Amino acid sequence: MKSVMILTVWLIMIIMATPAAHGLGSRPKPDDGPGFARWIVSQNSWGVLTTLDFNKSPFGNVLSFMDAGTGIPYLYDSTKLDLTGIYAVADPRASLTVTEYVLGYCGSNDPQWPICAKLTLSGQLEVLNKSLPEGKWAEEELIKRHPQFGGFPKAMGFDVLKLNVQQIYLVNDMKPRKNVSVIEYFRV
Amino acid sequence: MKSVMILTVWLIMIIMATPAAHGLGSRPKPDDGPGFARWIVSQNSWGVLTTLDFNKSPFGNVLSFMDAGTGIPYLYDSTKLDLTGIYAVADPRASLTVTEYVLGYCGSNDPQWPICAKLTLSGQLEVLNKSLPEGKWAEEELIKRHPQFGGFPKAMGFDVLKLNVQQIYLVNDMKPRKNVSVIEYFRV
Repeated sequence: MKSVMILTVWLIMIIMATPAAHGLGSRPKPDDGPGFARWIVSQNSWGVLTTLDFNKSPFGNVLSFMDAGTGIPYLYDSTKLDLTGIYAVADPRASLTVTEYVLGYCGSNDPQWPICAKLTLSGQLEVLNKSLPEGKWAEEELIKRHPQFGGFPKAMGFDVLKLNVQQIYLVNDMKPRKNVSVIEYFRV
Repeated sequence: MKSVMILTVWLIMIIMATPAAHGLGSRPKPDDGPGFARWIVSQNSWGVLTTLDFNKSPFGNVLSFMDAGTGIPYLYDSTKLDLTGIYAVADPRASLTVTEYVLGYCGSNDPQWPICAKLTLSGQLEVLNKSLPEGKWAEEELIKRHPQFGGFPKAMGFDVLKLNVQQIYLVNDMKPRKNVSVIEYFRV
């Protein structure tokens, strides 16, 4: 009897711990700005990264990324071949935009209808040194999550770009765009 | 049994023939840059529009658009309430990014794998005068194609934004990014 109770307690603990193990599994309530922002980043694996071209005009590009559970987006791009990578080296200012439309949470709503959530993280891109631990780890992890990255030719300047987030803009209900606190975003 | 088979074959043929009826229905060959660019714009109904914020940093936002058969993207946004609309009035430089990933043409390829096509149109946004024919037509047509636009409060400064395209960047095969001629794009 005692062992059954212990087993039951263990099972309950495992079940309760499971969502936490996946981090951010279920869609948070729209008024939880930081939680919602972390959730939508954790669920997406690609977005539009925008940098500034040599005329300082905006240039958007579709890139895959990973969040790796911390809320920090890491990307993989060539700083020799791809315009985004080349622009990022010249001027690190960037924004990453994602939407829950591609996750299937918007039903029949238009991608622009405000309750179909969209998020923009803006900040500065940093090219990580791949001989240091964070850069080495991020490259391995990016290739694990996006296996085709392993097929990019190593000699062509593929680098890990880390987006150091400075501002977070969220639209997820019929209210004006939310400015989510970056500190609270990382605390989630 | 035979009639069921005939019906099935007919249904499959009708379904397969449907895209051609829309003009730019079938996916062009990747080496046809202008045709491919026109096709991918015609097939998409939303993308990421990027403008410059007041610090001249890039700010991406998910917006719906229409092409209306001309290759010119028209968008509908509030120039009073939404950051993108507000920024566009202050500085018209912008880019619109779309991908065929959301159209289901990429199979198991990663959104960043080069044969999964992505396109960036860059240029200047123009706020159309809705009392003139082009603005009036575009607003009606945008609401027809994106019915929820009809639910945006008229008093909140919703305007038609036209992207006057000046440069076109296309990635659609294992080759460097293509610069598509804007003249040839409009000739398609």
